[in-house]
Amino acid sequence: MNKETIGQEFRALQLFICNELERIDGTAKFSEDAWDRLEGGGGKTRTIRNGSLIEKGGVAFSEVYGPVSEEMKTQLKLDGNHFYATGVSIVLHPNNPHVPIIHMNVRYFELDNGIYWFGGGIDLTPHYVIHDQAILFHKQLRTVCNKYDESFYAKFKEWADEYFSIPHRAETRGVGGIFFDHLNNHFQLNKEQLFRFCLDLGESFPFIYEEQADLGRNKLVTAAEKQWMNYRRGRYVEFNLVHDRGTKFGLFSGGRTESILMSLPPLAEWEYNYKPDVNSLEGQTLTYLSQKHTYL
Amino acid sequence: MNKETIGQEFRALQLFICNELERIDGTAKFSEDAWDRLEGGGGKTRTIRNGSLIEKGGVAFSEVYGPVSEEMKTQLKLDGNHFYATGVSIVLHPNNPHVPIIHMNVRYFELDNGIYWFGGGIDLTPHYVIHDQAILFHKQLRTVCNKYDESFYAKFKEWADEYFSIPHRAETRGVGGIFFDHLNNHFQLNKEQLFRFCLDLGESFPFIYEEQADLGRNKLVTAAEKQWMNYRRGRYVEFNLVHDRGTKFGLFSGGRTESILMSLPPLAEWEYNYKPDVNSLEGQTLTYLSQKHTYL
Repeated sequence: MNKETIGQEFRALQLFICNELERIDGTAKFSEDAWDRLEGGGGKTRTIRNGSLIEKGGVAFSEVYGPVSEEMKTQLKLDGNHFYATGVSIVLHPNNPHVPIIHMNVRYFELDNGIYWFGGGIDLTPHYVIHDQAILFHKQLRTVCNKYDESFYAKFKEWADEYFSIPHRAETRGVGGIFFDHLNNHFQLNKEQLFRFCLDLGESFPFIYEEQADLGRNKLVTAAEKQWMNYRRGRYVEFNLVHDRGTKFGLFSGGRTESILMSLPPLAEWEYNYKPDVNSLEGQTLTYLSQKHTYL
Repeated sequence: MNKETIGQEFRALQLFICNELERIDGTAKFSEDAWDRLEGGGGKTRTIRNGSLIEKGGVAFSEVYGPVSEEMKTQLKLDGNHFYATGVSIVLHPNNPHVPIIHMNVRYFELDNGIYWFGGGIDLTPHYVIHDQAILFHKQLRTVCNKYDESFYAKFKEWADEYFSIPHRAETRGVGGIFFDHLNNHFQLNKEQLFRFCLDLGESFPFIYEEQADLGRNKLVTAAEKQWMNYRRGRYVEFNLVHDRGTKFGLFSGGRTESILMSLPPLAEWEYNYKPDVNSLEGQTLTYLSQKHTYL
């Protein structure tokens, strides 16, 4: 289980997911930009737009390596001299407000001093929350988790609740999912098994998304619902730019801006102090997002 | 020159600016939300929307005080026990892409140990940069500065160039302006004079904006220009949420979110890796914003 294998399999995972998403979307195709990192490595950013389902989305692969910079030593508290990092990350913004925004990320990091870890997560951000649909999502995640460790789902669901929150709005980003970081040999699984877990999650992603998308993609949409979608996309922008640690680290460490910000929606709206009627579907969604939920 | 006077005059400044902006806009009126801060003080947030000129804008006044929290001690390196802070801040998003976005802020801060300072700034963010129009703006600012200290304009223009930049895009936010902070008795002006400078800048604001707005508000607008405006508004969102120290401090110190984020545009667009033709007006604006300019 060396780093080259992990990188190659993550690159294959990106292509697998893109193929599946093209099948699910039905009309749009991904295009690819390859980029190089000056200090070592690079990536392939694949994006899709104006599909039958996906209005704007990206599936990014990167594999970067090189000396551990002073900034990384301070910010990430690393004490090796050389690092290697690879991962796949995805954000999809659908055109129909009855389909949720979805995000997934799996990543691997290692230092030349023998330290390594896996991280990742997947979370769902419905514009209109339907509790039963969120349960389906969490069931899928638990099924994948349970194949590897029966304690994973409960632990990683908690972690996601904490991570995918917007403190300045006192809201969660959506209905959560799972989040994990620093998985390594301190866990009961070996490196190969942890890697298989990440891959399995990645390979399950298109089918989990398909199930969610199929429940909403054919619903009729009003202009008011589209506007509400844009307000919710505004919150997505706020989370990503103000709180998301991955985005901030990328922007401040000189990553490729267009690849990092492919997560932003095609359009977002802000209206000062907008408050929907608490009994409307929009108001119910806001109330839902201000509380903590269990799904399973 | 006590703090109560400064607070009262800043509140009067807010009302003066709002009246002038209503006159300039011609149709829309401000509405006001008053809010209280649990630990002491509060504010009046005045917003305007869907005018003949201003699509979305806010003029906020706040006057807050209380014990210096542990977080403030660490983050702001303050060593008094009680603080008082008051200020007026403004962001206006016009409906016509040929009118620039404008921002202004004046503020006063004091501690019970006798330390005080004034801060502020004003900067212009054209969707389409016209160099001669930027010169007019800078001339107005220099005129105000020179009434108080002939060294101010040059110093504060440099400071604005540094502050209003978007490192992750290698662009400036716009054509700059002036920025200043920690003006106090270490300067040649006394407290009263520094305060008069801030007030004068605030009172000049509507006329400076009017001059800029009149140069663009009657220009015809194409759909492509509207889209470009939305992309530029996207950059404004990125600056405010990723880099602006005032916004970040407000959000992380538990300020009133809707008052802090009144600076966000009504609408913003992101398109992956969008690159206008370098010879188009859009491309020329991007090239302009990637360089440093002098105006006077």
